[in-house]
Amino acid sequence: MTTPNLDLLDNLAIELPSWAFGNSGTRFKVFGTPGTPRTVHEKIADAAKVNELTGLAPTVALHIPWDRVDDYGALRTYAQDLGVRLGTINSNTFQDDDYKFGSLTHTDKTVRQKAIDHHIECIEVMNATGSRDLKIWLADGTNYPGQGDIRGRQDRLAESLATIYQHIGDEQRLVLEYKFFEPATYVTDVPDWGTSYVHVTALGERAMVCLDTGHHAPGTNIEFIVAQLLRLGRLGSFDFNSRFYADDDLIVGAADPFQLFRILFEVIRGGGIDLGSPVALMLDQCHNVEEKIPGQIRSVLNVEEMTARALLVDTDSLAAAQETGDVLGANGILMDAFYTDVRPLLARRRAERGLPTDPMAAYAASGHAARIAEQRVGGTQSSWGA
Amino acid sequence: MTTPNLDLLDNLAIELPSWAFGNSGTRFKVFGTPGTPRTVHEKIADAAKVNELTGLAPTVALHIPWDRVDDYGALRTYAQDLGVRLGTINSNTFQDDDYKFGSLTHTDKTVRQKAIDHHIECIEVMNATGSRDLKIWLADGTNYPGQGDIRGRQDRLAESLATIYQHIGDEQRLVLEYKFFEPATYVTDVPDWGTSYVHVTALGERAMVCLDTGHHAPGTNIEFIVAQLLRLGRLGSFDFNSRFYADDDLIVGAADPFQLFRILFEVIRGGGIDLGSPVALMLDQCHNVEEKIPGQIRSVLNVEEMTARALLVDTDSLAAAQETGDVLGANGILMDAFYTDVRPLLARRRAERGLPTDPMAAYAASGHAARIAEQRVGGTQSSWGA
Amino acid sequence: MTTPNLDLLDNLAIELPSWAFGNSGTRFKVFGTPGTPRTVHEKIADAAKVNELTGLAPTVALHIPWDRVDDYGALRTYAQDLGVRLGTINSNTFQDDDYKFGSLTHTDKTVRQKAIDHHIECIEVMNATGSRDLKIWLADGTNYPGQGDIRGRQDRLAESLATIYQHIGDEQRLVLEYKFFEPATYVTDVPDWGTSYVHVTALGERAMVCLDTGHHAPGTNIEFIVAQLLRLGRLGSFDFNSRFYADDDLIVGAADPFQLFRILFEVIRGGGIDLGSPVALMLDQCHNVEEKIPGQIRSVLNVEEMTARALLVDTDSLAAAQETGDVLGANGILMDAFYTDVRPLLARRRAERGLPTDPMAAYAASGHAARIAEQRVGGTQSSWGA
Amino acid sequence: MTTPNLDLLDNLAIELPSWAFGNSGTRFKVFGTPGTPRTVHEKIADAAKVNELTGLAPTVALHIPWDRVDDYGALRTYAQDLGVRLGTINSNTFQDDDYKFGSLTHTDKTVRQKAIDHHIECIEVMNATGSRDLKIWLADGTNYPGQGDIRGRQDRLAESLATIYQHIGDEQRLVLEYKFFEPATYVTDVPDWGTSYVHVTALGERAMVCLDTGHHAPGTNIEFIVAQLLRLGRLGSFDFNSRFYADDDLIVGAADPFQLFRILFEVIRGGGIDLGSPVALMLDQCHNVEEKIPGQIRSVLNVEEMTARALLVDTDSLAAAQETGDVLGANGILMDAFYTDVRPLLARRRAERGLPTDPMAAYAASGHAARIAEQRVGGTQSSWGA
Repeated sequence: MTTPNLDLLDNLAIELPSWAFGNSGTRFKVFGTPGTPRTVHEKIADAAKVNELTGLAPTVALHIPWDRVDDYGALRTYAQDLGVRLGTINSNTFQDDDYKFGSLTHTDKTVRQKAIDHHIECIEVMNATGSRDLKIWLADGTNYPGQGDIRGRQDRLAESLATIYQHIGDEQRLVLEYKFFEPATYVTDVPDWGTSYVHVTALGERAMVCLDTGHHAPGTNIEFIVAQLLRLGRLGSFDFNSRFYADDDLIVGAADPFQLFRILFEVIRGGGIDLGSPVALMLDQCHNVEEKIPGQIRSVLNVEEMTARALLVDTDSLAAAQETGDVLGANGILMDAFYTDVRPLLARRRAERGLPTDPMAAYAASGHAARIAEQRVGGTQSSWGA
Repeated sequence: MTTPNLDLLDNLAIELPSWAFGNSGTRFKVFGTPGTPRTVHEKIADAAKVNELTGLAPTVALHIPWDRVDDYGALRTYAQDLGVRLGTINSNTFQDDDYKFGSLTHTDKTVRQKAIDHHIECIEVMNATGSRDLKIWLADGTNYPGQGDIRGRQDRLAESLATIYQHIGDEQRLVLEYKFFEPATYVTDVPDWGTSYVHVTALGERAMVCLDTGHHAPGTNIEFIVAQLLRLGRLGSFDFNSRFYADDDLIVGAADPFQLFRILFEVIRGGGIDLGSPVALMLDQCHNVEEKIPGQIRSVLNVEEMTARALLVDTDSLAAAQETGDVLGANGILMDAFYTDVRPLLARRRAERGLPTDPMAAYAASGHAARIAEQRVGGTQSSWGA
Repeated sequence: MTTPNLDLLDNLAIELPSWAFGNSGTRFKVFGTPGTPRTVHEKIADAAKVNELTGLAPTVALHIPWDRVDDYGALRTYAQDLGVRLGTINSNTFQDDDYKFGSLTHTDKTVRQKAIDHHIECIEVMNATGSRDLKIWLADGTNYPGQGDIRGRQDRLAESLATIYQHIGDEQRLVLEYKFFEPATYVTDVPDWGTSYVHVTALGERAMVCLDTGHHAPGTNIEFIVAQLLRLGRLGSFDFNSRFYADDDLIVGAADPFQLFRILFEVIRGGGIDLGSPVALMLDQCHNVEEKIPGQIRSVLNVEEMTARALLVDTDSLAAAQETGDVLGANGILMDAFYTDVRPLLARRRAERGLPTDPMAAYAASGHAARIAEQRVGGTQSSWGA
Repeated sequence: MTTPNLDLLDNLAIELPSWAFGNSGTRFKVFGTPGTPRTVHEKIADAAKVNELTGLAPTVALHIPWDRVDDYGALRTYAQDLGVRLGTINSNTFQDDDYKFGSLTHTDKTVRQKAIDHHIECIEVMNATGSRDLKIWLADGTNYPGQGDIRGRQDRLAESLATIYQHIGDEQRLVLEYKFFEPATYVTDVPDWGTSYVHVTALGERAMVCLDTGHHAPGTNIEFIVAQLLRLGRLGSFDFNSRFYADDDLIVGAADPFQLFRILFEVIRGGGIDLGSPVALMLDQCHNVEEKIPGQIRSVLNVEEMTARALLVDTDSLAAAQETGDVLGANGILMDAFYTDVRPLLARRRAERGLPTDPMAAYAASGHAARIAEQRVGGTQSSWGA
């Protein structure tokens, strides 16, 4: 038996999305909660709190325009003072009336240019924040058969992306996310990993695929896609979350912990958490009825726990069982690791690093929730709208 | 061959939802359009326009509180003056902060009572408007395993419904809609026809199931459920719309016209459009990127066309083919009807009744869209929020 | 905190299907393995081996005609001598040419009578074997729209079932299974729990629903159905297995262990493993590429482990968290139990009962597989065909 | 308005699979029918009958080893004498015991070599039959997590395909089919178009993707994939069929005629039926309960009718509506074509070409079914097994 090497856990770093700390919900209702940030500064402070308690979340992703500020350099310093760095810059081309029928794919050159310019602005933000990744999740699509020309939209998308890519710096990357559906209900212009892959390979080496774990058709084997993209050298980042139905944006690991385990097993198998790996791990969730800061703490802990379990797999024995067609033996080796309770081990690991052994309990005990609820009165709570 | 009896088309009446004329969209963005109603009166006027051009939509469903007015008797008269009647009253227990964790199923008796009282208010509205049906679509559910007690929620739901049902008048009905998921992402408390059926049969004879065509798991055979509920005498109403993925709320017949045909074939087979049938046909759609009034016109025409096609099925020959195991013959008889272009016939039928032969073209030519865009300036456009 | 009461594990008894020990596969290929039983006696011997090593599987379900013998009394004695009892009798109306277009639903009265007579034969078998349950899984359905009359098929089904039910003894039960699709590809005549429920309630108190965990539409919340059927007093039995896509018939718990945990939590919540519970737990799997006897051992252990985890849930704290809307707290209490490694505890429990602590290892070490491979030479290996 | 150019119908040629004339079914039962071919010669004769009556099916695909003969040159002549040509050669690596754990992906080099050699044999058959395409549908995959190394299987697959590709002649092509699942139930090694695309582009210009319309996850927008693959120049062929649930292999157009229309619209849009197009149209169906020869006639007629409808789309007006954001207008233009009854027009077209105006009726009237039922007595009816 190989000795499990949990040292790889040291490489684990999970980026938090600023918007997870704002209000979000469904088309039916967005519930607000006391203490919700009004500004990007408060969002970053919340993210820093998660990192303080877990040691797992050193960076915060921003969303433009939701997190637009006048001085990104100052924001960068602000974050660093709180112990975190600014990470991925996410663009937004789905909330302007101009984008009703598309952005990078629009038939109207003026609208396409506006969307391209927005991405160039995002790259300028990246230059100021020191961010590496521009992440493009494109809401473009159509709702009715005939509404748009599927093929023409692809061609325009390719052209728009190529224009944006010219502005990506040598140390920067363009990461293209795909999504099965929503908000579009008939055609989504980047609906699957194949489409994202085709576009990023056409762009160049600094273009990568982003895999959001909630963005697939029912039944899709996500770990297969992880393995394939790692094999092809094009897995740029994850948007972690979980789902029972559509893009539910639940806490990662909440709906199907075994799936998360299998995904992380393939990440490790493909070198995705090795030092220097091109794979960025990020959360993308929508805390609808649950508390936000503990929701993010729970999420990064889930990723850590499942990574630890996946690292416990006895890969030598597994390979041997696979080669002899020992189906139950191979499956049993995997399940042994999954069923091992790594929580005590991780608690000790935290203690060794000066972190609270139980970050959820530590947060609850800290009185932080009550404090921000008291302090953050007045103003407008952040949400997807702003 | 039996002569198709298109006379049943005379019984066709499709209720329009007032909210279809307001703005609606996705959690990402709601697009407004010029001319969108600001008041329930303007919504009713729009519905009346659809009925004027098609002769198919004699009633308008209201949604409380979105359509709350001081004087429902006056609203009833207003509608009648425009040639339509007020129809189903739809309750809303998903937009108050109190309902974050449930309404009729809530663990807190106070919240349950508030939700019950809301329904009693709706019944009072019905008394004033002369409406027959109280429709309950319940957003209640949970997002995470463990969040709620599945069984206890059912028991409380049964109790709350029983209390409401006591207020339903002798000529009134309680219609309980089911939905696979959304807004809840883990448990939905009325997720399938079986659950709705169990509750309405426990209530009494004036409780019925509402079938929304967009509220099923992928692959569900909806016409089977239609046939089953008609057989059981519990199909109270339809919410028509269509979908490719989730509850997309697209124009009925837009995503899968053949499915609509099969559904209407079973409706006819089960007596659902016979005189005196208990089945109410209603639209429930969300016009996100398309024009609203023509969207509703297109919808009622789709139902009419597919009903006509379904009426063309040579049921005697079909029964003979079914009994001899002639699979291709039986299927061919059905397809023959589906593939028959009934549009010329329906155009003639409209002409005979003094209706425009092409209602979509008539609306476009009428200048009505420009007129309301000019008139309806200022105020707040109606949406799900108000 | 409540003390978890693992005593309920003593009530755990999981019925094994005789056919799990025979060959089975897909429409593309059925792989045979050395040692596969040729007779029902050898199947029972294999089931007895599973029970010997686990103490969890005291009964064996038979399938007629696959397990037809001349003397069922002798078979009963044979089983008892091996330490197991004969359990549920499963009928088969899908392998005769007569049933090409249906059995209990067929338009031809002769075919329906043949299918009814087959069930009466099954009841006679039950009388001889001392079995309580007649389980009906009906393959009836149609492949093409128009092929059959959906409504008429339901009526004939109801009539056929009523005739069969008249023969069910006072201590016997009729259990009606539902399935989303397969082998039928358009209409399945008993496709969902609602349909099964409607039929069994029409029959009488000794008719119950059978829930096969692999027989649902994608995304269906199975634990909800479990909770609902227990609430209604109509959950008669489970067919356990697991799936990623369709009716994959994989080892229970293999595809989504957390789902199995949630299902068993609701079983416990609803009294399903209390003494005297009407719920029969049974496996229904198809070991396609994996070894059969260890496949069954693994399956019963999975059910045992997940039951133990579900029994660990601190239900008092859970109820408290649910009532205060503490979403993350409630979810955390559930997950705590799920993530607890109960395997050492169960190993001790086995040792106390004189069972091998690791039944999988014990089987592997026993040489039994090699022994039966050597002994069972010649004859025809059992499969679904015989 | 553009004049619809139905001349493109002249290019329509739909390849028939020899195996569609043999028996096939589900894992539960395969029903035989009188007149089913016993030999590849009889299968080809049946295919020729379909072509004789429709003029649409000039080629027949063979499946090796099911259609293995000693003298392929003689078979070629035999087919030509009946007015058809031999088409695509389909390999089979799923029915030998050696392939239980994979073929081209197997960990054992000997098994991989056996599978490679089988494909080289197929290429030799192609040389003798004059076939252009080698089609590889790979059943390889795993049923349980851990059973195989996902990544390693991809690497071995790539290597095996490269070896086979070296044998593909200058005028020949390798066409790689993908399938969502079945027979594998956890990982399928070529599960989606992206994976097939990645492999064929690695091979070279004579490697293409095969799109089977029944091989996708629920809700997948197939016409998008068609448009994308045509855009990328890698759509080699279609396997037409239709489905409600899984890979039901029903008659193309039977489950969702509007989907078939949309697919064919994109085929035309992308030049897929232009002269010299690389896209081969083929059926791949499994006539389980319906008659086989009329099943194939119905299928090619469905493709013809939907192609005609798709050709009726007024593409100039459509483009104009798309560019002005006229959602309902654009959708209406598409639907107008879909709802047009082209059957009279196609009947006239057939008459002009000396074909029966109603091929289904002509077959029924021909007495051919009775004739072959009488002639084909004795021997073993062909099926997937042989």
